[in-house]
Amino acid sequence: MTKEQLFAQIQRKQSFLCVGLDSDIKKIPEHLLESDDPLYAFNKAIVDATAPYCVAYKPNVAFYESMGVQGWLAFEKTVAYIHQRYPQQFIIADAKRGDIGNTSEMYARAFFDEMKVDGVTVVPYMGEDSVKPFLLHPERWVILLVLTSNQGSHDFQLTEDREGERLFEKVLRRSLQWASADQMMYVVGATQGKLLEDVRKIVPGHFLLVPGVGAQGGSLEEVCRYGMNSQCGLLVNSSRSIIYAETGEDFASAAASEAKKLQVEMKSMLERYLR
Amino acid sequence: MTKEQLFAQIQRKQSFLCVGLDSDIKKIPEHLLESDDPLYAFNKAIVDATAPYCVAYKPNVAFYESMGVQGWLAFEKTVAYIHQRYPQQFIIADAKRGDIGNTSEMYARAFFDEMKVDGVTVVPYMGEDSVKPFLLHPERWVILLVLTSNQGSHDFQLTEDREGERLFEKVLRRSLQWASADQMMYVVGATQGKLLEDVRKIVPGHFLLVPGVGAQGGSLEEVCRYGMNSQCGLLVNSSRSIIYAETGEDFASAAASEAKKLQVEMKSMLERYLR
Repeated sequence: MTKEQLFAQIQRKQSFLCVGLDSDIKKIPEHLLESDDPLYAFNKAIVDATAPYCVAYKPNVAFYESMGVQGWLAFEKTVAYIHQRYPQQFIIADAKRGDIGNTSEMYARAFFDEMKVDGVTVVPYMGEDSVKPFLLHPERWVILLVLTSNQGSHDFQLTEDREGERLFEKVLRRSLQWASADQMMYVVGATQGKLLEDVRKIVPGHFLLVPGVGAQGGSLEEVCRYGMNSQCGLLVNSSRSIIYAETGEDFASAAASEAKKLQVEMKSMLERYLR
Repeated sequence: MTKEQLFAQIQRKQSFLCVGLDSDIKKIPEHLLESDDPLYAFNKAIVDATAPYCVAYKPNVAFYESMGVQGWLAFEKTVAYIHQRYPQQFIIADAKRGDIGNTSEMYARAFFDEMKVDGVTVVPYMGEDSVKPFLLHPERWVILLVLTSNQGSHDFQLTEDREGERLFEKVLRRSLQWASADQMMYVVGATQGKLLEDVRKIVPGHFLLVPGVGAQGGSLEEVCRYGMNSQCGLLVNSSRSIIYAETGEDFASAAASEAKKLQVEMKSMLERYLR
């Protein structure tokens, strides 16, 4: 999917919501545990319920990996289901990978060729040659960690070098030499508030994947005020507050309500901040 | 496995070799492709051939993940085989994981509870709360990326802050507050030469996992000169130069010869530098 196609979806749906499929066998409704593949059954219901209100899905790979082979099967089936039923949805494997060149090549093969996701989150710690193999796949996206939503993001990402450049700024500037806004997005946590403005100074035109609205406490209004650009440029993710909105039999309709609530807010944000 | 048990193995075998199982379906001997599970058949033969000469195995998770479910099965079977037949071997999942707290917990569960490896490599970019969940598992190890073996390691890891502290040094110092040498090791590339000395100034007593000897060009002698401590403190990994020493039917005996060659060198390094 291209940047323009993604923006067209955002306009059509008046939403830039990404639903995070952090599907945990310990948290899904009990009655699903009787199904052959509970995680897949859960995801399928969540996707069917939320698809009208979002433009992207982000399965969090850890949650599937922790279930071993059964989890991987649920992951693959979920991706295949979304592609088949909702081909306009952008699918992100939240995997946070990154390794020496020959190994990153294997990861790129795993996610893009085997699992056929549109984008994968990548960690910059190991530098250019750990990221580049992911860029060899046309029309697939690298979504680089820059400024994460967690408390530990302050441990290293804000460190200033001798010239006062912070590590997250250095990552942004360096990465501009690796790929354009047509192939790279950045992860910037909703909890980072005004720092989003500093991100936008370096990458005004890129899409940002913004986690941390909802359970983690980030503000949607703040994200839009500091982060929205003329093509929206935002995919705002919410996971737990949507998929675990209710834990009973009506979990899917509760998820739809939560997603719709966010979509309505997003519509008004687009009216206000799209410029 | 404790630090003392690992050192006891090193003394007994006069080796601190870790064999990297970067097993790639495109590189393993052709005759194995007829087997039900070619990657597992390959690993089994490599493990049986090299076990006398090493103290650890490090399957590189990317290579299995790139094969989808079939790859995960091969990974799990390989780990189970090593545990059962060679219970004294230390098993490292080279996964380079790290995410927000609830997700790192899932990864820890995946590798320690599901796959039962002894240690997992973890990326520090997201800071303390992304690493800590891995430390909640007693007698399991976090092996933190500090100074990697690839060229891109220079992009960010050597950045100096205002006080002249480099990022890899900051990671080392911070991480000392998270866990002791009984639960944490560090990845330091063999290609970093004299920088190993700077690592040892901060973490004199920890084990280091050192990739990059062999195909990547690092020198074993240099690693030992700058990195060995009184309990050896080194696990030196070699992957491709051992497992792909020969690509014909005698691949396993060729791997054994390469591993043995390294073990003999390591024995003389222990005689020279263990202090």
